[in-house]
Amino acid sequence: MPTLRLLFSAALSFAFLFNAFSAAASEKVYRLKLAETWGPNTPILGDASKNMAKLANEMSNGRLIIRIDSANKHKAPLGIFDMVKSGQYDLGHSSSYYWKGKVPNTLYFSSMPFGMISTEQYAWFYRGGGMALMEKVYAPHNLLSFPGGNSDIQMGGWFKKEINSLDDLQGLKIRIPGFAGEVMAKVGAKPVNIAPGELYTSLERGTIDALEWVGPAFDLRMGFQKIAPYYYTAWHEPGSETQFLVNKKVWEKLPADLQTILETAFRVAAFDMYTQALDANANSWATMSAEYPDIKVRDFPPEVLNAMQTATQALLQEQASNDPLAKEIIESQQQYLNKIRAWTDISSKAYLDANSNQ
Amino acid sequence: MPTLRLLFSAALSFAFLFNAFSAAASEKVYRLKLAETWGPNTPILGDASKNMAKLANEMSNGRLIIRIDSANKHKAPLGIFDMVKSGQYDLGHSSSYYWKGKVPNTLYFSSMPFGMISTEQYAWFYRGGGMALMEKVYAPHNLLSFPGGNSDIQMGGWFKKEINSLDDLQGLKIRIPGFAGEVMAKVGAKPVNIAPGELYTSLERGTIDALEWVGPAFDLRMGFQKIAPYYYTAWHEPGSETQFLVNKKVWEKLPADLQTILETAFRVAAFDMYTQALDANANSWATMSAEYPDIKVRDFPPEVLNAMQTATQALLQEQASNDPLAKEIIESQQQYLNKIRAWTDISSKAYLDANSNQ
Repeated sequence: MPTLRLLFSAALSFAFLFNAFSAAASEKVYRLKLAETWGPNTPILGDASKNMAKLANEMSNGRLIIRIDSANKHKAPLGIFDMVKSGQYDLGHSSSYYWKGKVPNTLYFSSMPFGMISTEQYAWFYRGGGMALMEKVYAPHNLLSFPGGNSDIQMGGWFKKEINSLDDLQGLKIRIPGFAGEVMAKVGAKPVNIAPGELYTSLERGTIDALEWVGPAFDLRMGFQKIAPYYYTAWHEPGSETQFLVNKKVWEKLPADLQTILETAFRVAAFDMYTQALDANANSWATMSAEYPDIKVRDFPPEVLNAMQTATQALLQEQASNDPLAKEIIESQQQYLNKIRAWTDISSKAYLDANSNQ
Repeated sequence: MPTLRLLFSAALSFAFLFNAFSAAASEKVYRLKLAETWGPNTPILGDASKNMAKLANEMSNGRLIIRIDSANKHKAPLGIFDMVKSGQYDLGHSSSYYWKGKVPNTLYFSSMPFGMISTEQYAWFYRGGGMALMEKVYAPHNLLSFPGGNSDIQMGGWFKKEINSLDDLQGLKIRIPGFAGEVMAKVGAKPVNIAPGELYTSLERGTIDALEWVGPAFDLRMGFQKIAPYYYTAWHEPGSETQFLVNKKVWEKLPADLQTILETAFRVAAFDMYTQALDANANSWATMSAEYPDIKVRDFPPEVLNAMQTATQALLQEQASNDPLAKEIIESQQQYLNKIRAWTDISSKAYLDANSNQ
C-alpha cells in the first residue's frame, strides 16, 4: 500500500519538524551576561556569582545560561550600576553602597555603622520591609536589587597605636572609605583613600596610622598584622551585604519559572556566601592568631564609640531631613533594629556571654 | 488539490499526536507526598514545607508537585522517620533529635547543649563536614536528611523561683524532654514529660516548678509568663535546626534538574524559616515585654552553667566511647565550635557587647 506508506512517511517528516519547532519554543535558552565588581577568582565575593550561575543552569536544565565577566574583562568595577541599567549587561554582582554618589539612597542596603548584624538584617530584608524599600530605590533606574551574599561582620581595622581616648583619634590618618570615613572625619580623624596595592607600604612607612580592610579572611594575606598590632573590633559594617542587580526589562521578559529559578539561585548563593565567609573568617582567624600571637584585639573605648555613634546619627538626620525616602528607610531600619536587638540581647548575646572564655 | 490537502491534514494529526507524546515524556510530572511532624497551620515550623513545595512547583513549571500531610492526617507526628524510610511517604519535615531512641547518632543534627548557634552550625553543615556526617548516619536507613529550617535559639525556660545556686535545682520538677532532660537529671533536677495541653495547669498548680518550651514566638500564647516570672536564657538548644527527610530510592529516580530544584527549595525554605523565626521572636518579645513588664530575664549562675556543661560532656563522652561514628561526629562538632567561636567572640559578641543597652 504505497499510498499509505507515503502518507505515513510524509506525516512523520512533518511530525519531526513540528516537534522540533515546538520544543524550541518551550525550551528556549536564555543567555544572560553578568558583570561583577571583583577581579577574576576573588574568593568568597567572586564565588557568589559562580554558584548562582551553576544553580540556575542546573535547575533550568540548561535553559538559563549566565556568562560572568570579572573586572579584568569589563574594566569598570564601579560601573556595574550603569552597565546593568543601560542593558550593556543583564545582571551585576556588586555592593549597594558603591552607588551612594550617584543615588544617595542606595547607601542603606549594604551595612550601616552601629546597625544590624547579618541575621538581623536578613530578617529586615525579608520580613521587615527591606526588600520593598530597596525596590523603591532601584526600580526608577530600571533595576532590581537582591541580597547578594554577606561577607560577615567587618573588623574595625588595624592600628599602629592603641586608642585610649577620643584625643588619640585627632588627626589620625586612617584609610576608611565611604560613609564610615565621613563618621571618622566628624570625630576628628583624617580619612584618606589609598589604592589596595599601596596599603601595606603606606601603613609601614607611616603615611597612614591605621586602616580598615575587611576581616581575617581577607586581611591575613595583606599582612597588616606584622606592622600594626592593634586589631579593633567592629563598629562600621556589622553585616556587609553584597547585591545582585538585574536589568528590569530583561527580568520582565523571562518566563515565570525562570524568574523564580533566578531569584531562588540568588538567595541560595547569598546564603552560601555568608556561611562561606563565616567559615573562612574562622579559619583565617585561627591561623592568624596562632602565627601572630602578638596581635592585640581591642574594643574602642566607650567614649570613642559614643562619639562615633553620635556622629553617625547626625549624618543620618541630615540625610533624612533632605529626602523623604531616606527618612522612610532610616526610620524603618532604626525601628527594626531596636525591636530585634532587644531579642538578640537576651538570646544570642546572653548565650555567647555566658559561654565565653574571654 | 484534494490529495495534497488530505496529506497535509493527516500529517498535522500525526504531528499533534507525536508532539503531545514527546511533551509528556520530557515534561513528566512527579507527585511526591510529604509527612510533617507538626499539626496543620503550625506557624513557622509548618510554613517551611509549604514554602518549599511552592518554590519547587514554580521552579519546575509544575513538574514537581508535593502534597503535604500534617499530623492530623497521618496521625504519626513522631513516625516520620519510619514512614519515609519505608516509602509510605516520599518526604518528611521533622527534627533529627526525635529519632535518637531509634538511631542514637541522629541526635547531633538538631542542636546540642552548649553547642553552636544557628549561623555557626550552618557553617559546620555546609563548610565544616556536617552534611557528610549526616549522610553517613541517614543513608543506611534509605534516607537523606537536609537542614529544614532553624527555629532560632531557644530560651532556657520559665521558672517560678529564681535559681541562685546548684542547690536550688535539687529535686526541681521541670518539663524538659530529650538529651537536655538527661543533663538536668545529672545535676539533680527531676525532668518530667507532660503533654503540651496540660503544661499551663501543671505549672500553675505546682505539679511542676519550671518548664522549657521554645522562645517568645511560641511561648507568648501559652501564657507561662503569667505564672512563672523568671525567664532563663539559653543553654540547651542554641540553634534548633529542623530537617527535610527524603526517601533515597525516590530521590535517585528524580531527574538531575528536579534533584537540584528540590535541594535548592529545601535550602531556601530552611533559610526563610530562620529569618521568619528571628522576626517572630523579635515581635513576640516586644509584645511580651511590653504587656508583662514583670518578666525577669535571668542567666543561670556560673556554678549552675558549669555543672550542666560538665554533665553534658560526661554524657557525650559516654556516647563517644560506645560508638566510633558518635565519636567522629562529637569531635567534628567540638573542633568546629572551638574554631568558629573564637571568631564569633571577637566579631559578633564584641559588637553586641559594645552596643548593648543592658
